[in-house]
Amino acid sequence: MRNFRFHSSIWLTSSEPLYPEVIDQRYLPFEAHTFIIRNLEDACFAIREMVVRGAPLIGVTAAYGMYLSILDCSADDYNERLCMAQKALNDTRPTAINLYTATRRMMETYRQAEKGSDIAGLLFNEANRIRFEELDACRKIGEYGLSLILEISRKKDGGPVNILTHCNAGWLACVEWGTATAPIYLAHKNGISVHVWVDETRPRNQGARLTAFELGLAGVPHTIIPDNTGGLLMQQGKVDLVIVGSDRTTLDGDVANKIGTYMEALAAADNQVPFYVALPISSFDFSLTDGIRNIPVEQRDATEVSYIEGWNGKEITTVKLIPDDSPVANYGFDITPARLVTSLITEKGIINPDRDSILHLMHS
Amino acid sequence: MRNFRFHSSIWLTSSEPLYPEVIDQRYLPFEAHTFIIRNLEDACFAIREMVVRGAPLIGVTAAYGMYLSILDCSADDYNERLCMAQKALNDTRPTAINLYTATRRMMETYRQAEKGSDIAGLLFNEANRIRFEELDACRKIGEYGLSLILEISRKKDGGPVNILTHCNAGWLACVEWGTATAPIYLAHKNGISVHVWVDETRPRNQGARLTAFELGLAGVPHTIIPDNTGGLLMQQGKVDLVIVGSDRTTLDGDVANKIGTYMEALAAADNQVPFYVALPISSFDFSLTDGIRNIPVEQRDATEVSYIEGWNGKEITTVKLIPDDSPVANYGFDITPARLVTSLITEKGIINPDRDSILHLMHS
Repeated sequence: MRNFRFHSSIWLTSSEPLYPEVIDQRYLPFEAHTFIIRNLEDACFAIREMVVRGAPLIGVTAAYGMYLSILDCSADDYNERLCMAQKALNDTRPTAINLYTATRRMMETYRQAEKGSDIAGLLFNEANRIRFEELDACRKIGEYGLSLILEISRKKDGGPVNILTHCNAGWLACVEWGTATAPIYLAHKNGISVHVWVDETRPRNQGARLTAFELGLAGVPHTIIPDNTGGLLMQQGKVDLVIVGSDRTTLDGDVANKIGTYMEALAAADNQVPFYVALPISSFDFSLTDGIRNIPVEQRDATEVSYIEGWNGKEITTVKLIPDDSPVANYGFDITPARLVTSLITEKGIINPDRDSILHLMHS
Repeated sequence: MRNFRFHSSIWLTSSEPLYPEVIDQRYLPFEAHTFIIRNLEDACFAIREMVVRGAPLIGVTAAYGMYLSILDCSADDYNERLCMAQKALNDTRPTAINLYTATRRMMETYRQAEKGSDIAGLLFNEANRIRFEELDACRKIGEYGLSLILEISRKKDGGPVNILTHCNAGWLACVEWGTATAPIYLAHKNGISVHVWVDETRPRNQGARLTAFELGLAGVPHTIIPDNTGGLLMQQGKVDLVIVGSDRTTLDGDVANKIGTYMEALAAADNQVPFYVALPISSFDFSLTDGIRNIPVEQRDATEVSYIEGWNGKEITTVKLIPDDSPVANYGFDITPARLVTSLITEKGIINPDRDSILHLMHS
């Protein structure tokens, strides 16, 4: 994987017809495969089976899925086809808000199109626009977040800034840069000494498999830890700040993110470690207030916990981890209440996790 | 494993010479192997390599190791041999206090022996006594802890009492009954409906491998969850109480236990879920006060995080989980400060985690 040539999670194929192509993240960090999304079914499969994952990338993929859904039908069927596609895509995964935002936006583009216009062309452009907006948002999040890292670096006289992150909110979850990782990459590029504690992130190990892979590729110093280790590190003063991403954040600043985020936030609060959530505005759900009551938490298949994938030296292989007959629960997300969040890092600035600040952001 | 015939983690071989024999826990829940400890080296190996683990069982194993160390030397060498054995055993693992308590007690037995007495016989008896004391302590912890479960069961009109536990503080960690599990087994035997959330307990998965195995064997309803899931379950009201064990507890009630315990305690406190620590008095370290500053936290080999063992359908096999070149940290324990502990369940009763209560216990 030393010759891994990608730095973007999604792009367009290089020859006509242009399809979105993605890194098949199910094989990382062991094998490099890509996956071309040629139709709606491919888009649904890619999201459901986690060929792609991460709220921003899920949104972008769904946008292309909407576009692809009308390619093989006549204009008379566009409306029906897009309604069906919106439903199919929205049903793939329940927690990331970007999915619903992206499909709704594509639907609006269709509905607002003038009669006789090139609908396929309009939808293709809109999906591309969503992709570039996500990329741009991440870059700006990086710039705002950089100031927080820089401040700590100065306090530590340039000593390494220790950052803990959970799951993968890197460029693999977005388009480029990532959300939580964008400030880290920018700091590293600017010669600021950083070190990242990478939560393994059971059960799918997106931290150990994807974030560690990304950071290694970029040459950013990092250490993989089990998810249960952040508390001890914070007790010992080994974490200067936490940055995580978000799959959905409410109007009152409650943050849905990968299961385990809440427990890291509790540890941060107990040890006066700042806890930042980096997210594009597309990951806000302005219609919800109470995250714990209102955000649906995805339950995924038990086999993700009872079996694990790894590299046996020759190929990716799956082994069983638990006794026969022991039941398993596999919740995908938890809710970090706003009171545990220091600030939200968005593409429009760093704000407090409260309704006034979020409303102001929404209308700015 | 349906015909698994053990209900004790350590026993004596059935024919002369009598050696301690243990379940080789490295193979559970996939294969049933036992391991006979014939000499000091075997005892050190068993503790260091985690053939046996769990603070009480480590202590018992170390006691037999002291006894075995003098079997092949003359009485003139007993003192030197025992000093060497004490050092070798104490060096195997750093966190569990029972190890030091047991080897010191064996040393005292030797020093207090009358001239001309059968030292080997005295040491053998003392090791057996330590074993039975641990067994007895666990049974009593079960009886005291049962009252806590019973109280919640009554409040819930007999509805299942949901108990979260971390790592393995079951009979595999002790001699029989276990510490954290003793109240659960007693409740189940008494027809009280219980359900146990079993933390997987990365990186060695003692929860998913050992606690789930124990509970399944006893027919206790349970569900395996990743370590990062307890917070969400508590947010959702799905945990009535937490019970964990302890590798060492200070005079001020700070609790060293398997890494991740502290984060579960934070989640319990944030959701008003009672958090109990079940431990025999042998797991107290009356010489220490501040757990975070004073208790050494074992760092174990990185390969425990970067590789994992599982069952491939035919045999236990090891697969790699992380990218090449990514560093790993593997801390074995963390410290739960007394302020997060509701009560300590000991063989002499349920007490507050504070100095007065612990001093009173020590002198009772």
